[in-house]
Amino acid sequence: MNWFKDTIEISTNGKGLYSFTDAVQERIRRWGVQEGMCFLSIQHTSASLTINENYDPSAQADLEEFLEREAPEMQSWYEHTLEGPDDSSSHIRVMLTQTSLSIPVDEGRLSLGTWQGIYLFEHRARPHRRQVLVRCLGVA
Amino acid sequence: MNWFKDTIEISTNGKGLYSFTDAVQERIRRWGVQEGMCFLSIQHTSASLTINENYDPSAQADLEEFLEREAPEMQSWYEHTLEGPDDSSSHIRVMLTQTSLSIPVDEGRLSLGTWQGIYLFEHRARPHRRQVLVRCLGVA
Amino acid sequence: MNWFKDTIEISTNGKGLYSFTDAVQERIRRWGVQEGMCFLSIQHTSASLTINENYDPSAQADLEEFLEREAPEMQSWYEHTLEGPDDSSSHIRVMLTQTSLSIPVDEGRLSLGTWQGIYLFEHRARPHRRQVLVRCLGVA
Repeated sequence: MNWFKDTIEISTNGKGLYSFTDAVQERIRRWGVQEGMCFLSIQHTSASLTINENYDPSAQADLEEFLEREAPEMQSWYEHTLEGPDDSSSHIRVMLTQTSLSIPVDEGRLSLGTWQGIYLFEHRARPHRRQVLVRCLGVA
Repeated sequence: MNWFKDTIEISTNGKGLYSFTDAVQERIRRWGVQEGMCFLSIQHTSASLTINENYDPSAQADLEEFLEREAPEMQSWYEHTLEGPDDSSSHIRVMLTQTSLSIPVDEGRLSLGTWQGIYLFEHRARPHRRQVLVRCLGVA
Repeated sequence: MNWFKDTIEISTNGKGLYSFTDAVQERIRRWGVQEGMCFLSIQHTSASLTINENYDPSAQADLEEFLEREAPEMQSWYEHTLEGPDDSSSHIRVMLTQTSLSIPVDEGRLSLGTWQGIYLFEHRARPHRRQVLVRCLGVA
């Protein structure tokens, strides 16, 4: 098996889900990996990863609204407020979602289900440039 | 190290936790893997994975009830309602749990703790057939 | 690629986040791994893993307080009460966080972001000794 690595940079424009399935798939294709395992890791504490429904934007809207209600900005009991009203809520949202994912590769493609997409979940209100590390162990 | 792969199919009969620890362990044994890493990935957006308490059914009942209260069906603010009352709540429950897991293999067995079991968490009310991809990198 | 393994033992003294980033980094250094993938797995159902903010203790306090509010001890609807008031809430907190993590290694170091730390999240009130399995596939 061989080892492949790259970094995907994602520009965000406020809170929400940003699909980057195609960017990962493009690396698998470029590397020529036929079979193996792909690992994704995010390097931030106010943005995270999730694999979820890729078809209907209203499903994504509900995921976003859920976290907005579940871990709102500026709760009275937050102690960590120096870095802005959306900082502590961001760390909570990171805790409730994922920082690392692993996805099998078969026949040269990510083995995702029909309705699965890979998303970066931005939890900060202002634009950011986010880094996701892509690693792949596979047969080229 | 060698590469092993299979798919485990799990028939569900409504919401809840379905243990499939034995099905994964059976693959490890059949492949003869002595040492390495086992990766599990679910291919759905309305069922997910979790490693949790395997002994007392009341512990599992509380996990199920927690999600039922935390992300109930048919909240007034859900936008995504076309695919049924349990669809948006399912995606939220997937986000809060796991879609991929990794478990070490040592001495021919999954290195789980005494009380740990591997579960598929079905979030849909009606019966489904679910696919979990099993991959193992290990020394046979 | 070579295979490295060890177990990190962490003594906890009540609920909260316990950083063990340095203990993982120490293994990577000792093994001389230059590039590869590091896998962490916890063997418990009342303690879990998370990668989150490593700098300001108030951020960690908010993560702890969030789970204390989200999944409190002794809710009236808990069925699983025989093992103490903090047992069912612990399993719920494990479900909402992580039991396994994967982190790339580059140039002999864990590729974490500047503000990321690796934490064991203890969900039990009394002291425990916890085991985290460390596995690394990499080029030494």
